[in-house]
Amino acid sequence: MKSKDLPLKDHASWFAQIWPPLPVWRRLDAAVVLVIAYSLIVKFATSQTDVVLPKWIGDISVVNGILLGVLLGFRNLQAYDRWWEARKLWGQLINDTRNLCVKVKALTTGVPAAELQAFGRLVVGFAVSLRNHLRGGRPLYEVPGFATERANPPHVPLQFAAWIYERIRGWQAGGRLSEINALIIDPHAKALMDVSGACERIRSSPVPLSYRALLRHGTILYLMSAPWFMADQYGYMGVILVALLAYFLLGIEMTAEDVEEPFGKDGDDLDLTRFCETIRKATEQLLGDLDLGDTALSTMAVPKV
Amino acid sequence: MKSKDLPLKDHASWFAQIWPPLPVWRRLDAAVVLVIAYSLIVKFATSQTDVVLPKWIGDISVVNGILLGVLLGFRNLQAYDRWWEARKLWGQLINDTRNLCVKVKALTTGVPAAELQAFGRLVVGFAVSLRNHLRGGRPLYEVPGFATERANPPHVPLQFAAWIYERIRGWQAGGRLSEINALIIDPHAKALMDVSGACERIRSSPVPLSYRALLRHGTILYLMSAPWFMADQYGYMGVILVALLAYFLLGIEMTAEDVEEPFGKDGDDLDLTRFCETIRKATEQLLGDLDLGDTALSTMAVPKV
Amino acid sequence: MKSKDLPLKDHASWFAQIWPPLPVWRRLDAAVVLVIAYSLIVKFATSQTDVVLPKWIGDISVVNGILLGVLLGFRNLQAYDRWWEARKLWGQLINDTRNLCVKVKALTTGVPAAELQAFGRLVVGFAVSLRNHLRGGRPLYEVPGFATERANPPHVPLQFAAWIYERIRGWQAGGRLSEINALIIDPHAKALMDVSGACERIRSSPVPLSYRALLRHGTILYLMSAPWFMADQYGYMGVILVALLAYFLLGIEMTAEDVEEPFGKDGDDLDLTRFCETIRKATEQLLGDLDLGDTALSTMAVPKV
Amino acid sequence: MKSKDLPLKDHASWFAQIWPPLPVWRRLDAAVVLVIAYSLIVKFATSQTDVVLPKWIGDISVVNGILLGVLLGFRNLQAYDRWWEARKLWGQLINDTRNLCVKVKALTTGVPAAELQAFGRLVVGFAVSLRNHLRGGRPLYEVPGFATERANPPHVPLQFAAWIYERIRGWQAGGRLSEINALIIDPHAKALMDVSGACERIRSSPVPLSYRALLRHGTILYLMSAPWFMADQYGYMGVILVALLAYFLLGIEMTAEDVEEPFGKDGDDLDLTRFCETIRKATEQLLGDLDLGDTALSTMAVPKV
Amino acid sequence: MKSKDLPLKDHASWFAQIWPPLPVWRRLDAAVVLVIAYSLIVKFATSQTDVVLPKWIGDISVVNGILLGVLLGFRNLQAYDRWWEARKLWGQLINDTRNLCVKVKALTTGVPAAELQAFGRLVVGFAVSLRNHLRGGRPLYEVPGFATERANPPHVPLQFAAWIYERIRGWQAGGRLSEINALIIDPHAKALMDVSGACERIRSSPVPLSYRALLRHGTILYLMSAPWFMADQYGYMGVILVALLAYFLLGIEMTAEDVEEPFGKDGDDLDLTRFCETIRKATEQLLGDLDLGDTALSTMAVPKV
Repeated sequence: MKSKDLPLKDHASWFAQIWPPLPVWRRLDAAVVLVIAYSLIVKFATSQTDVVLPKWIGDISVVNGILLGVLLGFRNLQAYDRWWEARKLWGQLINDTRNLCVKVKALTTGVPAAELQAFGRLVVGFAVSLRNHLRGGRPLYEVPGFATERANPPHVPLQFAAWIYERIRGWQAGGRLSEINALIIDPHAKALMDVSGACERIRSSPVPLSYRALLRHGTILYLMSAPWFMADQYGYMGVILVALLAYFLLGIEMTAEDVEEPFGKDGDDLDLTRFCETIRKATEQLLGDLDLGDTALSTMAVPKV
Repeated sequence: MKSKDLPLKDHASWFAQIWPPLPVWRRLDAAVVLVIAYSLIVKFATSQTDVVLPKWIGDISVVNGILLGVLLGFRNLQAYDRWWEARKLWGQLINDTRNLCVKVKALTTGVPAAELQAFGRLVVGFAVSLRNHLRGGRPLYEVPGFATERANPPHVPLQFAAWIYERIRGWQAGGRLSEINALIIDPHAKALMDVSGACERIRSSPVPLSYRALLRHGTILYLMSAPWFMADQYGYMGVILVALLAYFLLGIEMTAEDVEEPFGKDGDDLDLTRFCETIRKATEQLLGDLDLGDTALSTMAVPKV
Repeated sequence: MKSKDLPLKDHASWFAQIWPPLPVWRRLDAAVVLVIAYSLIVKFATSQTDVVLPKWIGDISVVNGILLGVLLGFRNLQAYDRWWEARKLWGQLINDTRNLCVKVKALTTGVPAAELQAFGRLVVGFAVSLRNHLRGGRPLYEVPGFATERANPPHVPLQFAAWIYERIRGWQAGGRLSEINALIIDPHAKALMDVSGACERIRSSPVPLSYRALLRHGTILYLMSAPWFMADQYGYMGVILVALLAYFLLGIEMTAEDVEEPFGKDGDDLDLTRFCETIRKATEQLLGDLDLGDTALSTMAVPKV
Repeated sequence: MKSKDLPLKDHASWFAQIWPPLPVWRRLDAAVVLVIAYSLIVKFATSQTDVVLPKWIGDISVVNGILLGVLLGFRNLQAYDRWWEARKLWGQLINDTRNLCVKVKALTTGVPAAELQAFGRLVVGFAVSLRNHLRGGRPLYEVPGFATERANPPHVPLQFAAWIYERIRGWQAGGRLSEINALIIDPHAKALMDVSGACERIRSSPVPLSYRALLRHGTILYLMSAPWFMADQYGYMGVILVALLAYFLLGIEMTAEDVEEPFGKDGDDLDLTRFCETIRKATEQLLGDLDLGDTALSTMAVPKV
Repeated sequence: MKSKDLPLKDHASWFAQIWPPLPVWRRLDAAVVLVIAYSLIVKFATSQTDVVLPKWIGDISVVNGILLGVLLGFRNLQAYDRWWEARKLWGQLINDTRNLCVKVKALTTGVPAAELQAFGRLVVGFAVSLRNHLRGGRPLYEVPGFATERANPPHVPLQFAAWIYERIRGWQAGGRLSEINALIIDPHAKALMDVSGACERIRSSPVPLSYRALLRHGTILYLMSAPWFMADQYGYMGVILVALLAYFLLGIEMTAEDVEEPFGKDGDDLDLTRFCETIRKATEQLLGDLDLGDTALSTMAVPKV
């Protein structure tokens, strides 16, 4: 991984450095505009009717704010934990595929180069099929290097894991890999399905509906009641205040929704294709060129989520 | 797991998207109505008697709110951690049953297909019996594929684990599985009882009573005292404020109670039957059809919790 | 573990459902009564002397409250973490003893039933001696099934672990257990001392004195100064407010003290005897009746902490 | 570990039970006296000059307090995590040395008692040399039982780990330990250097300077500005308030500094010598008397940190 | 690691002890000066125009402050977690290289000293090449001891790991290392690529842009609006207050940016070169002098990040 590939710094314009754009800005700005429109209507209504509303915010807002803080802080942490766990899982997949190839290369005896390359294609195929699986599923024959494969199992990564173990068993049976050395290789081969299962868990288990619902209800009730009190006290300045609150309340909530499903293709989602490329490069460094074509991974039809 | 099976987005109506319904809404709404009735009585009482109560909320509410925040935030996190740990355990069970079947298929030699299928039935039987065990316990003969089984051990999943090790030992003794390969298979076989034990721990160890009691006492005292001060200051608007506070205070607490026991059949509880189906599908992909009948898992009499 | 053994729901009266009793209520109520008495004296003193004290609470209480919140939240989490870790350790002990028995049964060859039962008694003996050890220590001959044992080692669970390894080594030497199968059994045998050591760590390492002292100092200073200001402003209502604050501040602190030492016999402490029973039941399901007598575990003289 | 050795309850006077002394009280009290002196000077200055300062604390203190709360809570948690991790590491060392001795005793064949005792001395020597290493380093010949040893390697615990592996290899080569049984012993032997490395990490990696500096700056600026505003409003009562704030702000910070370096000999630091004694006792229970002398560990010249 | 090498105490001047300098102070002070200039302009503008702005901060600042607190606390924790994980990974690398060398020395038979030293150079070479890799990448021939090496693989640490496994396999094939002993060595050899992959994960996966953007937006909007209200109320004192707020808000944020990328060469970044030295010293203690030259690691051209 070269330095210039790393997105550590956004090399965008000076402005984007100071004020980095929020990935969810489209939906967020639309929602804030709605809140502003609602606030202006409230402002107009209260100024027409001389309704005097009590200055209650200072009194209630502490408990109010703490409840929102508990819910927001929790939602935030939860979403990030899912994202970071997903990132760790793919990092672990990179580690284990590397160690798998290092060990297969070193510990087998007399395996022809073509067979090692076929093994490398299985490894890369596992990664690509897992990416596809997590983005909605694609048939086995769309995995690079397996276009002519007839089998079309329901769970494609599981099939690759099974083939990998069949190879290992075949080398054992053929005397090319001792049983103890198979044991040394095993932790990395079994890790493939562990990563797959954990990614599926993140994908198929959203945050409990209760938490999403509670925070949503709190945000909506807060934003719908705030203009009535603020407009009365602060006039048009109150509209700006409500808009700012809406920006951050909704911004944190929308960001959590975006981040907690890390396998999509939105702003902060994981770049699974780049990880697959990283796996392919390491596999080719160790086992030789895999004949997958230069652009195999990056230009293939990636399924939409 | 196909995309259309995933509950990532609630495809309900437009309204449910904006305002997702809380799973505990029935009990919650009933409690809020009670609080409103109580507040109205207080409002009536204070308006009749001209009692003047001090405007103390602003002064006390900071420490008050922080105490409630500490207790609520803690309760919330705790409940979610239990839920997420339970989800992880079943995800681990899915991983380990897959790897178990992959390895048994690849590493044994000359085991007849019927025996592999019998092994697959043991694996699926473990998952189903664990589901039943966590929902109150059902006899062994209710597990699909074991209707004619005479044994009725007190701990059914433990029996399945013992049978699985007997099979492995049998293959060892019969020369169909080398000892080293049995060692390669072992981590997944032993994981079965680890998952079972950890799920039992979650089920049988509720959050310490002290924490539930402290938060409950705080909520009740807060909601019983608030109307006296708010009604006096804000009139009928105060009743609305108390109702909103009650909605969120009780909502967070009831949600925690719901989420912290993840093996039931309430709103956010885990769909154990779906996990059993996932295990069955993977087992059948690897070891062949298990003759369990198409609807064996989903229509069987599921014990009530 | 049957459903009716599970303390998931407190089947107490209707009132206890709504207002669950706090395990530390005796000490807590006594302390609150003390605070009320002190507040009444202060109230009397201030009303006699016409001292006018500034209304400072609203100003200082934010930083004040945040400091208390940081300390309370931390103390709370810490205490619960210790309790939950202790619970996990005993859960792990249950898992490992089960797997140990499953594997010993399946992987040994030609071991007489009596010897398997003797092994089962060692396993149950380890659990019971660990319970005794964590509650102050009892001699070896008080462990059920070992009444005639002469040895009285200083660390009884360590002795059981050593005997278990001697059995395993004996089967190896006698050709009844292959070395690889001993390796498969090993993780569960070694887990015994890991659990023992971790429980001892929790028992012998209280939370650093600094944290207990800081929170205690903060609580005392807060409760001793609050009546002076509240009594002046709110009259007898202020006494009620101070009592409520005391109830929660002291309640959280006393609960933390109770929960952080989970091996005692107080309200929320772990039911170690029940865990020992669970281990005995699983061992008997796998290895046959252990001849320990029906009431051996539950009625034996349990040492006081 | 007997009950009377456990510091679960401070058996000090009645007063120390209620108001436990803070280990850092000397430095803390000195700092608070300084703050009081400064506040009195400020009080005198403001009373002489009739400067009227705005009552701003109520307005600013929320954000102020939240910033301080974030920094304090973080610092607190961080310091405790380091302390608890260090405690866990020594607990793990106790576990692994016990299991190491249990397994060496059970799994070797025909090793003379003297050689087992020499092995036991290596195990205890590792623990003692790690204690010395973490407290500044002492030469190898100061380890009990190795007074006549000529070698003086730079990293003494590493030398002990190397000797332990040489013994294991020697038994392998001499046919007294099978290779598989060496594999069963290995996890505990390798854990020695894992514990050593992790303790060194805690010792040599203080919390990033940035966090210590930010909190320090915040505390100083807060305590230097507070008297100007409080003295004006509350008179001499304000001095007491500032002193109380200083007590807790500085108390939390000084405690964090004390706790985060757990290998020293201050108030809450770990009692490494006691842990070494625990290891020696278990080793002697298993392998026989080690001829280290009764007071070898506790009275030896302990290096100053 | 000797005591005098440890940066536990900054032995700088008395002033730096009390007021430790913030590593990011240059950028931070510049930003605070900008904020002060802006505040003075605002102060001048408001005093010229007699605009009267509402005193709203007390009302809004609670929710405001809680939102900032959630975001700041989260950002802070996240950044520190990355730093601490990176530190743990290099600590693990130190442990595993030590155990690797201990075991290779003890468990191989008849390997010539020169070959052990060559192995030691591979181990140190891995550490140095990982340091270079994490700081932007340098060719293989710049690693000390490999100046004449022709190969220039894209992923240099991967190459070292592959060579290390080739050595191990070579000793297996030559009868100098039994297969079981290779299995005992394996966990430490495989850990090399695990550490490498995990460090790459930290380096190549910055915190999701959303979180950085939200906090940045909040800070900027807060600091741009605060002077308008404070200047009006507090005059020039308000400018000081805004400057203090800016100092801490921006200080926490800039510190997080500094700490979250721990492999650079800024203030709090990890001293990777020191870790490489530690690895070299332990390797030389165990396997003998590596002929790398005294200053090989510390004076070599370190790539800029």
